[in-house]
Amino acid sequence: MSSAVASDLAGLVGSEHVRHDAHFLADASQAMGLRGEAAAVVLPGDAAEVAAVVAWCYERGVAVVPRGGGTGYAGGAVPLDPAHVVLALDRLDRVRSFEPGLWRMEAEAGVTTQTVARLARENGLVFPPDPGAAEQSHLGGNIATNAGGPHCFKYGVTRAWVSGVEAVIAPGELVRFGGPLRKDVAGYDLTGLLCGSEGTLGIVTSAWLRLLPAPQLQLPVVGAFAGVEEGCEAIERVLASGVVPATIEYLDAGALAASASTFPGGLPDGTAFLVVCEADTSEADAAELEEALAGELGRALRPSARELWRWRDGVSLAVTARRGGKLSEDVAVPLDRLAAGITGTVAIAERHGLEGCSWGHAGDGNLHSTFLLEPGDTEQLARAEAAVEELFALAIALGGSVSGEHGLGWLKRGQLRNQWAPAAVGAHEAIKAALDPKGLFNPGKKTA
Amino acid sequence: MSSAVASDLAGLVGSEHVRHDAHFLADASQAMGLRGEAAAVVLPGDAAEVAAVVAWCYERGVAVVPRGGGTGYAGGAVPLDPAHVVLALDRLDRVRSFEPGLWRMEAEAGVTTQTVARLARENGLVFPPDPGAAEQSHLGGNIATNAGGPHCFKYGVTRAWVSGVEAVIAPGELVRFGGPLRKDVAGYDLTGLLCGSEGTLGIVTSAWLRLLPAPQLQLPVVGAFAGVEEGCEAIERVLASGVVPATIEYLDAGALAASASTFPGGLPDGTAFLVVCEADTSEADAAELEEALAGELGRALRPSARELWRWRDGVSLAVTARRGGKLSEDVAVPLDRLAAGITGTVAIAERHGLEGCSWGHAGDGNLHSTFLLEPGDTEQLARAEAAVEELFALAIALGGSVSGEHGLGWLKRGQLRNQWAPAAVGAHEAIKAALDPKGLFNPGKKTA
Repeated sequence: MSSAVASDLAGLVGSEHVRHDAHFLADASQAMGLRGEAAAVVLPGDAAEVAAVVAWCYERGVAVVPRGGGTGYAGGAVPLDPAHVVLALDRLDRVRSFEPGLWRMEAEAGVTTQTVARLARENGLVFPPDPGAAEQSHLGGNIATNAGGPHCFKYGVTRAWVSGVEAVIAPGELVRFGGPLRKDVAGYDLTGLLCGSEGTLGIVTSAWLRLLPAPQLQLPVVGAFAGVEEGCEAIERVLASGVVPATIEYLDAGALAASASTFPGGLPDGTAFLVVCEADTSEADAAELEEALAGELGRALRPSARELWRWRDGVSLAVTARRGGKLSEDVAVPLDRLAAGITGTVAIAERHGLEGCSWGHAGDGNLHSTFLLEPGDTEQLARAEAAVEELFALAIALGGSVSGEHGLGWLKRGQLRNQWAPAAVGAHEAIKAALDPKGLFNPGKKTA
Repeated sequence: MSSAVASDLAGLVGSEHVRHDAHFLADASQAMGLRGEAAAVVLPGDAAEVAAVVAWCYERGVAVVPRGGGTGYAGGAVPLDPAHVVLALDRLDRVRSFEPGLWRMEAEAGVTTQTVARLARENGLVFPPDPGAAEQSHLGGNIATNAGGPHCFKYGVTRAWVSGVEAVIAPGELVRFGGPLRKDVAGYDLTGLLCGSEGTLGIVTSAWLRLLPAPQLQLPVVGAFAGVEEGCEAIERVLASGVVPATIEYLDAGALAASASTFPGGLPDGTAFLVVCEADTSEADAAELEEALAGELGRALRPSARELWRWRDGVSLAVTARRGGKLSEDVAVPLDRLAAGITGTVAIAERHGLEGCSWGHAGDGNLHSTFLLEPGDTEQLARAEAAVEELFALAIALGGSVSGEHGLGWLKRGQLRNQWAPAAVGAHEAIKAALDPKGLFNPGKKTA
């Protein structure tokens, strides 16, 4: 690392907070071989120090790569140039205020997803977004990617639960947009614009969160089907039932091959497609879901919520474990194209001599389309990368998006121009240029 | 009107669609004396014609003022320069697609709020945002102001229910952001940015809406209190009850003076503050709300939903009727500052020798703070305008916003810089400059 930059930054945050640990140079995309390099890794102690670091860098033309818990799959937190500075938000880990009676919390960017969830739960509340890796991922990272999760089908993604942000914007100014208030149309929606901007427009240092009383019930209802078509028909029956499930998840045959054996209570023989709903309002709603999901493999299953979601959390790792590696994307499609996305994933895999599968947030049309890999097999990896390009093209052809919840990061850079018309891409780029005129916030990421 | 501009635009949309009706030059802000002037009023027949008109204007440096139903209170749709062109979206009134089973609709900007609501209701669904003036207001206007309404307490404002927009952006390009899909983090959130942008960044021509199965119940529960403090304490008891009401509305003593006599079934003697909740999940929730709202004036009231909401819709007009006029703003504050906002409104009025009152969306901290006026009394109007300045300062001092749902429009221009720090205002202005480099989309509106 560059000692000159590191030593100047040490003057701003303290030398013990300029770090060299290799883990700050990679995120969950390292499974794809992505590792970075940087001039320095700094861990500011508070928002004012974040502003000081950004101001120092912005003045000198030094790029800043913000980093949360490092659980991103798209390489968004990986520094890609030895002159870049990683700004890790681990030390911004304070819950600044928590007023359960008013259903709200202000928490800093480095607070983990799990901490937010635990505090809410201990007070009879819930912060609805529930992305994976809750122990490690940070609130700031959730905001940077506008993270989702199973329960976002009913409750909406992170943006819907952030009523304001404190952020450092160019050239190093600490500002706030919104706050602990629930409605505000005075200025443009900068809060919303920062949500999902992947650290390319500014660095969120703290956020005001809306919370909700926890539902009194959590009643999973699972339908087991012989195939994709039957399962997707059942999903449409669920929608038509008039019940609003908290979740509508699915797993296809390939995902079940990796995970069915540990499903709590077991699955019926012949299960090749699973639909996982949850009612959180009443037993009557659960019964209606059960009726909608009862398919040719018999009655719907009713596992306990705790067992079910623990199992569901393990699906991604179980799929990885089959061959030791995987290339997984998070495309989204309109709900009526879900079956086409699922079968298309498998067909693309076959065309490239790969094993493909998917699972994900069916109700939101959000697939985790996955190609299994043997680690170290570079030829296989090259085929998987070609398959991913086809997958993106399929998602776009189906009227969907190359990313439902992970963002573009580094690995999907350049994909937006396949999805949006040139004038729309122009608007995306004009916003980047307007808010980051020197192009120093997480350069190369989320580029069209 | 300028005949040269009008005749060129007639070539684009047909001469019968270049209009001169005076009503296109004003909106609901005409009660405040605001009337506009314009070079032409054009009514394009479809999105392509909107793009053609904008392209023609943008090339020639002619400003465009988009117009929906004309129900805005902030003058956002009023043309303020004889060289401006009003682009009225009345003819974009098609519902392009409606798939009840998939809970979604695509509707053009000129479709009325009531039409969206009726189509949804006839199919067992609901489009949750419920701003006033539903017969006249347009979907495009709702999006332009990110409109709210009573039921947005539980369901969120318009933005939460718009999954994508088709829009004409500079220099006259028809683009789409998002679509009939529920998750998409590929590009920056341009859909969200256009929501609430009041036609200053582009013109929304169509939108993809998310719908929801209609709740099976609609059980209003109303608490009558002797004062603001008791009423606001009851609101906090409601939040603590664990029930999520669909609405938490309030009316203060002044608003009740205008409207109590027509409350369905009548109100208890001594009622000086009303809290209007609605349970839409179960009778048990309604009973809990009833318990939380039972105050010193006895048991909570249970009017029928139809009668209650018809009465509530009439409150604004009833308040106007007391003196013939009013100056009403829509400030928002954090919920724990609601009582301070309500009593502060009355105190400000008294200091200016006026009668003040408020009502609104209590759960969202959104006040319709109002000063009564005799029409034509310019000295009184001047005092009311001074009172409004104090009201905005109060909202900001309470950590709130000068606008919860109406936007800045023309009448609140310049207020954002009192609410946001200079660097935040700089970001607002940078976005405007980036997306509208010639400053031709609704100039002078929503300025900081």
